[in-house]
Amino acid sequence: MKPNMTTPEALLPKGVKDFLPRKAAKIDYLTDTLKTLFHQWGFRPVVPPLLENLDVLEAGLGSGLQSQTFRFDDRQGGRLVAVTPDITPQVARIVATRMQDLPLPLRLCYTGRVLRHTEQQAGKDRELFQAGVELFGLDSPEVDAEMIVMAIEGLRRVGAEEFTIDLGQVEFVRAILHDLPLADSVIDDLREALMRKDSSSLKATLARTDLEPQRRDELLALPRLFGGIEILEKAEEIVVTPRAREALDNLRQVIGHLDKDLVENYITFDLGEIRGLDYHTGVTFQGYLPGIGRAVCSGGRYDNLTDRYGRSLPATGFSFNLLNLLFALDQSLDRRAEQMTDVLLYQEGENKVPAQRLARALRENGFSAARDMLKRPMEESLAYARQMNYRYLMAITDEQQPVRLLTVKDGSEQTVDFTDLENGHFDLSG
Amino acid sequence: MKPNMTTPEALLPKGVKDFLPRKAAKIDYLTDTLKTLFHQWGFRPVVPPLLENLDVLEAGLGSGLQSQTFRFDDRQGGRLVAVTPDITPQVARIVATRMQDLPLPLRLCYTGRVLRHTEQQAGKDRELFQAGVELFGLDSPEVDAEMIVMAIEGLRRVGAEEFTIDLGQVEFVRAILHDLPLADSVIDDLREALMRKDSSSLKATLARTDLEPQRRDELLALPRLFGGIEILEKAEEIVVTPRAREALDNLRQVIGHLDKDLVENYITFDLGEIRGLDYHTGVTFQGYLPGIGRAVCSGGRYDNLTDRYGRSLPATGFSFNLLNLLFALDQSLDRRAEQMTDVLLYQEGENKVPAQRLARALRENGFSAARDMLKRPMEESLAYARQMNYRYLMAITDEQQPVRLLTVKDGSEQTVDFTDLENGHFDLSG
Repeated sequence: MKPNMTTPEALLPKGVKDFLPRKAAKIDYLTDTLKTLFHQWGFRPVVPPLLENLDVLEAGLGSGLQSQTFRFDDRQGGRLVAVTPDITPQVARIVATRMQDLPLPLRLCYTGRVLRHTEQQAGKDRELFQAGVELFGLDSPEVDAEMIVMAIEGLRRVGAEEFTIDLGQVEFVRAILHDLPLADSVIDDLREALMRKDSSSLKATLARTDLEPQRRDELLALPRLFGGIEILEKAEEIVVTPRAREALDNLRQVIGHLDKDLVENYITFDLGEIRGLDYHTGVTFQGYLPGIGRAVCSGGRYDNLTDRYGRSLPATGFSFNLLNLLFALDQSLDRRAEQMTDVLLYQEGENKVPAQRLARALRENGFSAARDMLKRPMEESLAYARQMNYRYLMAITDEQQPVRLLTVKDGSEQTVDFTDLENGHFDLSG
Repeated sequence: MKPNMTTPEALLPKGVKDFLPRKAAKIDYLTDTLKTLFHQWGFRPVVPPLLENLDVLEAGLGSGLQSQTFRFDDRQGGRLVAVTPDITPQVARIVATRMQDLPLPLRLCYTGRVLRHTEQQAGKDRELFQAGVELFGLDSPEVDAEMIVMAIEGLRRVGAEEFTIDLGQVEFVRAILHDLPLADSVIDDLREALMRKDSSSLKATLARTDLEPQRRDELLALPRLFGGIEILEKAEEIVVTPRAREALDNLRQVIGHLDKDLVENYITFDLGEIRGLDYHTGVTFQGYLPGIGRAVCSGGRYDNLTDRYGRSLPATGFSFNLLNLLFALDQSLDRRAEQMTDVLLYQEGENKVPAQRLARALRENGFSAARDMLKRPMEESLAYARQMNYRYLMAITDEQQPVRLLTVKDGSEQTVDFTDLENGHFDLSG
């Protein structure tokens, strides 16, 4: 049965994509660069599976992600299983259940793909490519700061020049909403209004209550508590709830560990932010690049997550969203992620051994090389090399004859001794 | 809700695994080594999605894999979707529908994870890690030989010293079974017996027919047509079906492009092999390492697959099964894939800036370094470094004092000037 052929896009489920060589090479570049970063910061890889038992996974997922999870019956075993929508709970599970013998702290990293149901009218990706780190066993503000520094270092390494890191502290709003002497339904309405940063709904809802003026002011201030470092002072003037003030202190301590220059030029604050994965328990952050409204990295502290798998550990971490990075940096990655093949080998005549020998020698010397295995005139082979991003074409007659070395870009030509080539005595640095 | 904690394994669906740092580093090593190989042979990456529409995917899957596919309703869109069990049909779809503008041949590669339902009593993996190549637009035996050479080169690069490449030609058995003047049910019985290499069932089934002796002998010979190069001669003596003889010729041509030494020492033949992905159309091969009965790589020619997506192209390719490689090479990968962190930085006192500066300098010079961020005596920090696979511990007082450099393995110590370290004037090659 042939599928109905319309457009290539129509063949795929919504929200997933094919990546052809140019984009795929960029994804590879982003992945490799970030993996090197993680390794250089002392993080060691883990690979959790694509598939989890739904009940085990849900223990570690926020309610938002629970509703976004791809779930289905496992034909074998009859349990509900899921393709993971988030790797952090998996790493938490692994640390809690499999790594009890190792000393703390544990620095772990991963790269992987996850699936999430998302609103398709918004054209959001349903398959996400992530690369992230998790740090278990440390709870100081210094460590939260280190995650932010690492995120910035990652953005710089992949070529981002301008960026914003948006900081929040989930305990801040949580504390303000907590213990309000109001009915649950009213609190839900407040939460809803805060989620949308909708000041007038917020006001209307509060008008229905007899909340004391100070706490009313706190709530009304929330949607406007975003901006530069000055926001922290503004918040300190307004906020009275003790635990919210502690959250502000914590945020101040974290940024105290960051370079002043960094804080002034790259960090913004959003204290009214109420979204986020529900396992977060302290400072959270999201990174943004120009031209794209979706975060390119996000993370924060989550001190209660491993506990859901039976081991209590403070933890923090973050991940890069590779497709958002790709979108934001697409053009600047053209050069960084360019994948050319060094040599196309063109063999005259029926005896293929000389080309095979040169191909092997080139590869042993670290070059990339493919043999042209179609019978065609050399001119066609050269045109092919040009279209397919080869640097050089080598036209070979036999081991005794000199090899013609053509530079694909400009067609310029020189000859090289076969034996010199085979012995690695050549320079393709052009 | 906390999941029921029994053993870590019981938390996971059957047939999938967590990979902790040592194993994960080995998977990374295998992946990176094979990706480098693919690049060096001129293959360019593609990344098909995890998720496909079931009808589109099934157009390209063999019936065996259709029954192994993880399928479920897509809540959004209402179509049946699947997590792909095989990347080759996805690449074929991409080439057929998205790459018509590029000249042939097309050399494409991928790495990825797939899910397959497998018999769980056999303890088989349901999540497979694959790294493979596909070559479109070339149909000569020389090209089939090149795939085999490339597979062998891959096995050697990841450290395999002994290996066997088992060659088959799917048209050989297909031709012999084709056009038999027998009822379909009898042919099914024959196929079943051949699948199990069960000579006595084969004989019994044939006894129920009035097939002419020559064709009977052909069929009876099949289960025994495996072994070294001599098998080809044996087959030529017995086989009369013209298309089967053509398949033999094709196989001879392919091995004619391989080194004689290779063919004599590493290649075996299994002409009676009837299994395989049903899209194969010519020479197929599987690679085996000592100590593991499952193939570490497999592939072959598949000239009709892209046609199912609307574009007719000859094609060949193969993929490595990374978990089988990991299993077979586990010990020898200990050294190859060892991931140590170079330096653990121990900062005395409250001012963390000196350690931050050294960490940055070390990383800029290509080293890996983590700061010890727990308050603890240096001896504990050194014990941690030993357990967590660090090479050195650097104990820092401030920028003016010399830095103590301890070799973790033997505890030996020297002192180094802070400024020299920060300027990259040091040698950690020990």
